[in-house]
Amino acid sequence: MTLLLIASDRDLSPWAIALQACDPELDVQIWPQIVHTADATFALCWRQQANIWSQFPNLRGISSLGAGVDHLLQDPTLPANIPIVRLVDPLLAQSMFEYICAAVMGVLRDFDRYQDQQSAACWHPQNLTLSQHCTVGMMGLGQLGAYTAERLTQIGFNVVGWSRSPKQLTGIATYAGNAQLPEFLQRANILVCLLPLTEQTRNILNSALFEQLPRQAYLINVARGKHLVEADLLAAIDAGQIRGACLDVFRQEPLPPDHPFWRHPQIRVTPHCSSITNPESAAPQIVENYRRSQAGQPLLNQVSRSRGY
Amino acid sequence: MTLLLIASDRDLSPWAIALQACDPELDVQIWPQIVHTADATFALCWRQQANIWSQFPNLRGISSLGAGVDHLLQDPTLPANIPIVRLVDPLLAQSMFEYICAAVMGVLRDFDRYQDQQSAACWHPQNLTLSQHCTVGMMGLGQLGAYTAERLTQIGFNVVGWSRSPKQLTGIATYAGNAQLPEFLQRANILVCLLPLTEQTRNILNSALFEQLPRQAYLINVARGKHLVEADLLAAIDAGQIRGACLDVFRQEPLPPDHPFWRHPQIRVTPHCSSITNPESAAPQIVENYRRSQAGQPLLNQVSRSRGY
Repeated sequence: MTLLLIASDRDLSPWAIALQACDPELDVQIWPQIVHTADATFALCWRQQANIWSQFPNLRGISSLGAGVDHLLQDPTLPANIPIVRLVDPLLAQSMFEYICAAVMGVLRDFDRYQDQQSAACWHPQNLTLSQHCTVGMMGLGQLGAYTAERLTQIGFNVVGWSRSPKQLTGIATYAGNAQLPEFLQRANILVCLLPLTEQTRNILNSALFEQLPRQAYLINVARGKHLVEADLLAAIDAGQIRGACLDVFRQEPLPPDHPFWRHPQIRVTPHCSSITNPESAAPQIVENYRRSQAGQPLLNQVSRSRGY
Repeated sequence: MTLLLIASDRDLSPWAIALQACDPELDVQIWPQIVHTADATFALCWRQQANIWSQFPNLRGISSLGAGVDHLLQDPTLPANIPIVRLVDPLLAQSMFEYICAAVMGVLRDFDRYQDQQSAACWHPQNLTLSQHCTVGMMGLGQLGAYTAERLTQIGFNVVGWSRSPKQLTGIATYAGNAQLPEFLQRANILVCLLPLTEQTRNILNSALFEQLPRQAYLINVARGKHLVEADLLAAIDAGQIRGACLDVFRQEPLPPDHPFWRHPQIRVTPHCSSITNPESAAPQIVENYRRSQAGQPLLNQVSRSRGY
């Protein structure tokens, strides 16, 4: 019985060390070095190659290496009968909050505008806004979205939330489904996208949505690049409807060198770094799901294939 | 009996409105429009002209229009026998915290480095640091410093504090006086200056201090421009000892157009906007001190002229 690690674009040795620190008896192997593929009973996986699954006939569970599972569910060769789980890492939520807090506080205090002014040696204080007079709209109220919404509320922001199905969060007005999306959008001075990527949410950040935001709203996308119609964002900024954007994810990553986002004065580009799963804090949950899969018990944080998250 | 407002560089009408909303009976006048200078018994004052005080023989109290009182205490014509008070405005502390939070979180999450990388179309994730692994050193633990230190602790940062006289703050290691300054400095990954400007603190941010910080520490100055030896900062950044700085105050304000800070890639310049006293939230305290001065009672938030704050 082997716990198999699959991710061709990153160094997996810290994961092997953290998992074996949790349970020294565990047989952890890193693809493609695995000797007996039939021994693999559980896989921890990120951006796997196509057609990889047929090599492992005895898998009883697959865990994403991150909060998103779109790389798994969009793989047409994924076996239909294996439970898929997402990773819920408390430090993942914390680091996502801290990235979003940096972006939101910077917008509240006009650091983007002062940066423009600095390049022109222009000394001009903007009107000061306090957090209680700024509404952050959180799209997506899963583990990361709910955590971030609650912490931004604790800091002092007005926070409103939107999700596909109704959610209740302390101190946060929540909206659900397409019917309540306009009401949610018209309140959001700063819109944060933390949605899962599904057929329903692909391209959701588009001109029609931007037009429903208050004028000069700010966009933060930390979910997936395919949520955003990039040309629509550029047009909305040109039109003054969107004040600017902080983008951590892109339709193509790394963002190509000639992409207009790199040199746009109203767009902040970061290299998909908002939150990175921490092997030490995530390992206990992976080991727990590995044990459950061996014992035939229900897995934690299981994903609905039909919902897509 | 007149409450006199003195500040030649700003519009004082919102202050007159806020004070009269607190007490409609109050006679509020704005210098230099005052008719009977002998009626002025209390002054609210910001960056007054030299030699202004001899016109007002019956003053019983002078309040600064902000948290700092250096503009008053450095005025050699200030009458010796009149109590001086500083303004303690809860929204002033909140807005100062929010500015510092924007700067600190931005540094934690490498927004300064990503901005450099963006200008070179460079996609390179930095190692992610969590707030509990970053120590913020707060110089100055008065109203603004203590409030900001406690709120940064609540968010998750390690915070250490330094002040002239010993202070106790929940969850914050504090250091006092020159003897403990080195021990404080060696812990501060991000150094925030919120000191009062006195003879002891003028030029305190200098090469000798920078050398005691951990390598690649970051500086935030939101106190007074004269705390900082500007050439020493430029040298420390050049030498790699200081990673960068966020400066809201300068020896000369507005910062002159040809000043090297404007175009320095490691320095963020903001136009003395970190915190602005709010007339509505500050008015009740001013009216209270006005009444106390008329009744011959001790004033709130009185300043020690010998300490300088």
